[in-house]
Amino acid sequence: MRTLSDIVAAIGTLDRAFLRHAEAHQRRLTKPPGSLGRLEDAACRLAMLQRSLAPRLVRPRVILMAADHGVTARESVAPYPRAVTAQMVANIVGGGAAINALAAQAGADIEVVDVGVATAIALPPEPRAARFVDARVRPGTADMRLGPAMTAAECAAALAAGLAAVERAAADGVDAIALGEMGIGNSTAAAAIAAALTGADPAHTTGPGTGSHGDALARKVDAVRRALAVNAPGADPLAILTRVGGLEIAALCGVCLGAAARDLPVVVDGFIAGAAAALAVRLSPPVAERLFAGHRSPEPGHDALLDAIGVVPLLDLGMRLGEGTGAVLALPILAAAARALACMATFEDAGVAEPDEDEPRR
Amino acid sequence: MRTLSDIVAAIGTLDRAFLRHAEAHQRRLTKPPGSLGRLEDAACRLAMLQRSLAPRLVRPRVILMAADHGVTARESVAPYPRAVTAQMVANIVGGGAAINALAAQAGADIEVVDVGVATAIALPPEPRAARFVDARVRPGTADMRLGPAMTAAECAAALAAGLAAVERAAADGVDAIALGEMGIGNSTAAAAIAAALTGADPAHTTGPGTGSHGDALARKVDAVRRALAVNAPGADPLAILTRVGGLEIAALCGVCLGAAARDLPVVVDGFIAGAAAALAVRLSPPVAERLFAGHRSPEPGHDALLDAIGVVPLLDLGMRLGEGTGAVLALPILAAAARALACMATFEDAGVAEPDEDEPRR
Repeated sequence: MRTLSDIVAAIGTLDRAFLRHAEAHQRRLTKPPGSLGRLEDAACRLAMLQRSLAPRLVRPRVILMAADHGVTARESVAPYPRAVTAQMVANIVGGGAAINALAAQAGADIEVVDVGVATAIALPPEPRAARFVDARVRPGTADMRLGPAMTAAECAAALAAGLAAVERAAADGVDAIALGEMGIGNSTAAAAIAAALTGADPAHTTGPGTGSHGDALARKVDAVRRALAVNAPGADPLAILTRVGGLEIAALCGVCLGAAARDLPVVVDGFIAGAAAALAVRLSPPVAERLFAGHRSPEPGHDALLDAIGVVPLLDLGMRLGEGTGAVLALPILAAAARALACMATFEDAGVAEPDEDEPRR
Repeated sequence: MRTLSDIVAAIGTLDRAFLRHAEAHQRRLTKPPGSLGRLEDAACRLAMLQRSLAPRLVRPRVILMAADHGVTARESVAPYPRAVTAQMVANIVGGGAAINALAAQAGADIEVVDVGVATAIALPPEPRAARFVDARVRPGTADMRLGPAMTAAECAAALAAGLAAVERAAADGVDAIALGEMGIGNSTAAAAIAAALTGADPAHTTGPGTGSHGDALARKVDAVRRALAVNAPGADPLAILTRVGGLEIAALCGVCLGAAARDLPVVVDGFIAGAAAALAVRLSPPVAERLFAGHRSPEPGHDALLDAIGVVPLLDLGMRLGEGTGAVLALPILAAAARALACMATFEDAGVAEPDEDEPRR
């Protein structure tokens, strides 16, 4: 296994000349120039990643990292009890969760990695709807209101679990990764990360998550404030991840880095996955070229994270579920974009007249 | 074949009690209430249409109506010559167009119906990528700047071509229809329909279409003004369709009506399909309950049409291609919504704890 610094060193900038080559090919296809809108940009970026004018997105995988949060242990910051993390992991492995339905529609398989669930998981018998990997670093983070969520060694182990998941995906021929997560309390950790990364006030990065309103939301904002005050993580992404992050967020950060080192496209889900991706981009800015954003989260801190990554979500459907649902829903759009670039006829081949020369092109 | 008035009479309001039943089931599924956002509404609406808590969207079809427009015959209102309509029909039947790539990704087949192409179509040999149906009513409409685009009998024939396409789809087991169109000049006709239907000024309903800017756009606005002044269609949808519409627009209006009579969901594409759908809703308001909007068009008149239909597009990706591309791209989203409702476990079945009772639900 390569170390994190080896991985970061392996992530270079992509070949802009190939991007221009793909854009020129796109203009020869039988459609008004630019008329496929954002699909054209996505297709050319996939072409650049794969160094091919016929990019393919045919074997996607959801990598779903699961862990618990110490911040949920004493007083509620989430409307669900912490036992739900383990219960939902079992539900996903058994095939009954939203991500199962949406991934099946997108033709994606699912790997669930326990990097820090706090309670026992009653896994269903084989055959299972999703692969389960036990890579538990510790049973949930420590309460970040009292000190660091984890040690540096634990953070490194969670990052390594993400790198390992990418290696398994690559070995299986996966050509795109959707980021998923499950962890009661993790929108509190993501709100702390967003505040630390962007300098925004916690009141502006903390939202209802799965359903905290009123007093519950106020407790959540207070938890973020106390965590940042106690831990003073500064601007260093590894310090932020270790002190106010989460084990599943660290693992997803590792997925972003490992996938970038292999030029595998990654589709980011909503707020929690966005926090992981933003940390990965802070650790290695060229990671951003390999990222696509699936869905705009209603969480108030998401836009700041998207700005930090430099991506615009493909979808905005009011979803706030996590599990990778917003990422996997965007996969068919990216696959369609790739297919259009790869399969459409050119004006010349199809014998179709091009636009009148005296008309301006977009 | 049933007549148009038979069809309109067969379109009733849907069963709201079943909608409530589906919404209650949706709340029992293992996710925070409301967290699938607009997918939940879409799934419940599909459930109501199919009268099933396990709605299916597994056999979609693009019905693509093609025709030419007299308004393009004398002076340009579009950046492409009129011959491109026939050339693109051949390209679609041969598999080289954008709709072929996007429909393949969505698992949809394509039926192309010539309801009024003006020039000969050099069809490719079998096997073909799309079914071709010759239902040509006349070789393009008349120039609507000089008088009615078509006669009432021609309009009825084009509407009937749409009804017939739905009958073929139903016979083939199709469970969702995406509206597609091809016709150089048809954004000019749609702009006239949008102005007539909504009372908006033609300057606010007429946009660049496939790429008319500056003087070309001014000519287009002028063409719409002259067409409305000469034809004075009033507010009657059949008069609007006959005098300033198009043969492919009339056929798509027929598809909306025929599909509604069979409770088949229809995904509307962009501006031109939107004009057809808005006319269908004006002819029979309950049609709207069966419509989904795929993609928001950048054309300035689209929002007024969407308001007339009462639907909000699922996607907004800057696409302005037509052919049904914006509709077909939304099919996997609707299919995912249906699959989530049909396949997810309930809290009770999965043994997952429900939200704390003291937390407010959205």
